Amino acid sequence: MIEPAVLPDILSRDLGALAPGGKVLTDDPSLRKYSHDDAEWAPFEAPLAVVLASTTAEVAAVVNYAREHGIRIVPRGSGTGLSGGANAVRHCIVLSLELMTDVVEINVDERYAVAQAGVINDALREAAAAVGLWYPPDPASSGISTIGGNAATNAGGICCVKYGVTRDYVLGLTVVLADGEIVHLGRRTAKGVTGYDLTGLMVGSEGTLGIITEVIVKLLPLAGRVEQGIIGYFPSLTAAGAAVAAISSEGIIPAALELIDRTCLRAVDDWLKLGLPGDAHVLLLAKVDEPGEAGRESSDRVAAIFTASGGVNVEQAVDPEEVGRLFLARRMAYPALERLGPVLTEDVCVPRSAVPEMLSRIQASAAKHDLVIANIAHAGDGNLHPLIIAPEGDLPAKARAKAAFDEIVEDCRALGGTVTGEHGVGLLKLPGAAAELEPRVIGMHQAVKDALDPQGLLNPGKGFPHMMRH
Amino acid sequence: MIEPAVLPDILSRDLGALAPGGKVLTDDPSLRKYSHDDAEWAPFEAPLAVVLASTTAEVAAVVNYAREHGIRIVPRGSGTGLSGGANAVRHCIVLSLELMTDVVEINVDERYAVAQAGVINDALREAAAAVGLWYPPDPASSGISTIGGNAATNAGGICCVKYGVTRDYVLGLTVVLADGEIVHLGRRTAKGVTGYDLTGLMVGSEGTLGIITEVIVKLLPLAGRVEQGIIGYFPSLTAAGAAVAAISSEGIIPAALELIDRTCLRAVDDWLKLGLPGDAHVLLLAKVDEPGEAGRESSDRVAAIFTASGGVNVEQAVDPEEVGRLFLARRMAYPALERLGPVLTEDVCVPRSAVPEMLSRIQASAAKHDLVIANIAHAGDGNLHPLIIAPEGDLPAKARAKAAFDEIVEDCRALGGTVTGEHGVGLLKLPGAAAELEPRVIGMHQAVKDALDPQGLLNPGKGFPHMMRH
Repeated sequence: MIEPAVLPDILSRDLGALAPGGKVLTDDPSLRKYSHDDAEWAPFEAPLAVVLASTTAEVAAVVNYAREHGIRIVPRGSGTGLSGGANAVRHCIVLSLELMTDVVEINVDERYAVAQAGVINDALREAAAAVGLWYPPDPASSGISTIGGNAATNAGGICCVKYGVTRDYVLGLTVVLADGEIVHLGRRTAKGVTGYDLTGLMVGSEGTLGIITEVIVKLLPLAGRVEQGIIGYFPSLTAAGAAVAAISSEGIIPAALELIDRTCLRAVDDWLKLGLPGDAHVLLLAKVDEPGEAGRESSDRVAAIFTASGGVNVEQAVDPEEVGRLFLARRMAYPALERLGPVLTEDVCVPRSAVPEMLSRIQASAAKHDLVIANIAHAGDGNLHPLIIAPEGDLPAKARAKAAFDEIVEDCRALGGTVTGEHGVGLLKLPGAAAELEPRVIGMHQAVKDALDPQGLLNPGKGFPHMMRH
Repeated sequence: MIEPAVLPDILSRDLGALAPGGKVLTDDPSLRKYSHDDAEWAPFEAPLAVVLASTTAEVAAVVNYAREHGIRIVPRGSGTGLSGGANAVRHCIVLSLELMTDVVEINVDERYAVAQAGVINDALREAAAAVGLWYPPDPASSGISTIGGNAATNAGGICCVKYGVTRDYVLGLTVVLADGEIVHLGRRTAKGVTGYDLTGLMVGSEGTLGIITEVIVKLLPLAGRVEQGIIGYFPSLTAAGAAVAAISSEGIIPAALELIDRTCLRAVDDWLKLGLPGDAHVLLLAKVDEPGEAGRESSDRVAAIFTASGGVNVEQAVDPEEVGRLFLARRMAYPALERLGPVLTEDVCVPRSAVPEMLSRIQASAAKHDLVIANIAHAGDGNLHPLIIAPEGDLPAKARAKAAFDEIVEDCRALGGTVTGEHGVGLLKLPGAAAELEPRVIGMHQAVKDALDPQGLLNPGKGFPHMMRH
């Protein structure tokens, strides 16, 4: 990669002319702010400039300019990623889609929405709800993350145990390719198999194959959807694991099945004084949403399974506010932990039945490395988020945290798991991905990347372990 | 592409040595039998040889041999495709996976199955049902088509209106690449985003990027699933279209919503003497499967919508045999029509709300070209199968059929539809795909194809409109 042969002032002027409806930022605070996403543990550099584009045409113009001048581009939404996928690289332009916030169309008859990449996930859900429709994917960041970023990372969430992940809802995309051309991929019809699934290839490719500027998503009817919540406190990981397994083997597919461990519970209770049971090791939170009587039956069955597996203080709720109260500890877990120090977030996904074993291995790593590791888990999916905490400025603790991080990834793989269930590879999971993917499969990634971005301009070095160039 | 520098006898001997557990066929009847799939209207040639491989290693050995000798490979399952995707090309080896029929594993705890490519769709469903699990995708060919072929074409089916298509169930694949290497793509965990979705890229790529030899599919619990059937006869396409629209707008997602037109009904009744109402223009067949009371409510609501939209002879059934009886006309429609002459099958998919308009345009094409065109439609998805019938040996009729075929594709596109909802591009839909896909998107296809199959050995010319080579 050559050094950009453009002086800062000229770059700023040129970019301003190419994105007249947007903004170009080159002041130091902005360059710092846009230099990384929410994965501060991953490496990052200050960009040359930040462009907030306002249209697909502006994105294309900026990409064309960058290509001509050999400047690399790091696209981003609101920067809520946890793997460093949006961290700036040396001499790059950060291209943010956050100003592109129009919900372009909601088609009630065909049940789809067209949204610009910068639309916030919750805003899309609200716009759909206003016309009786539902956009299910609900990453924990739904209040701040964008639909474009959700698509670029194939974001998961709480309800994916029943309703699937972002990919399952993306019908089509508008994408700016590395050569600056604008393409429309996918369809608006319910089905369609014309050619390769390039839409699906772009989803989860973390901006390395193209820049998503508009998304067409499938919606579901909202009518008749009632969520019922069930919680229970368990004396051990084994007991909670048995409850999760029993729900699955009885053929119940809950709309959410979340686990919070003791470390998390204590952090939340120390902060918010909710009066959570001090001796509980694990909290399980479930939702069911079958229509009518079937939903009440499911809720009763989940509650009975919780009790039979050793759960105590089992509660059921159907009133939305009550359900919200039951899930309060889940929503507050991450901010409660961040009060204790910078959090290094794992995203391993193991077979559902291996959740108790994986959790006990994580506790062993915490003890071995003298660390606090808290756990939030999408238990129904086997997707665990061990949160490794190292006090601010404590470099030895940071080194131990990194060692524990790698150990957890190895344990996950030994149990048949994958290094990233929903956060993406970004930069943080490159070593894990290199161990997980067969060499020839990494070669396939490189071949596809080289085919669609031969100059390596788009989000270089991210998303998959790159091969050495010849 | 060079002429194969191998004499027939030597080719046969070599292939036999490479696939010792399989079969090599070079006799004329076999070469004829394996020269095309169920799309006889598309061009085909006799292959040099047919290899029925028995293991992934044998597939890899044959691909390696073919690559070394510049011989192209056309992979296939049981050849039930309707677009010519498995039609043999000049000087090729047809590589059939039909002997690879092992269900390798069904994991009840994690709810997935691992099946060799040659496992028949219904056989997989039965194996899953035996342990309380369900494999939903149900192409009409489920009794004879293979899971490998289903994955290669991203097959749809009756229940996809609610449960999605093959892609939605494929978690991972074993694939033999064009260079003869064996790769394992995807995962067995519920979630996973490590790297590009190469699994999804392979699904629906019609054997042009690799040969699928093993498939890992997600399964659902079978417990508590009760299907209820509802049928109604309608006096006009408009009335039936209104019923379809009302079901959708009331937020009901049926487990099936099929439409059969008068031409189809008459062909079935002439053959089977079922006593179908002679004056009915359209039959709608629906299934619902919500659990418990909610299912009964849905069934009642669908029946009420049928009646309110002008449907007569509305019947509901919950007993599986009764439901089967209601759907008999649907199952018999295709064979009933094949009795009338060779059938040219369309697979257009339009917005749900455009189904009545599309059906009336199809009838206009039939009148204009003096043809019989019958219609089966997955109405709930907007996926229509106009079946164009030209009497055997009637060359002018065949030419008119081709003209009607092209006209229907154009009408579908004018209504915002796609040329293939579930059958794939193969050879028959190459012109339609060329019109549907933007030139730069066709370029992306070619770039991906060249990246993964630089010699163009795998199923050449299929799946997408190829660009001219430089």
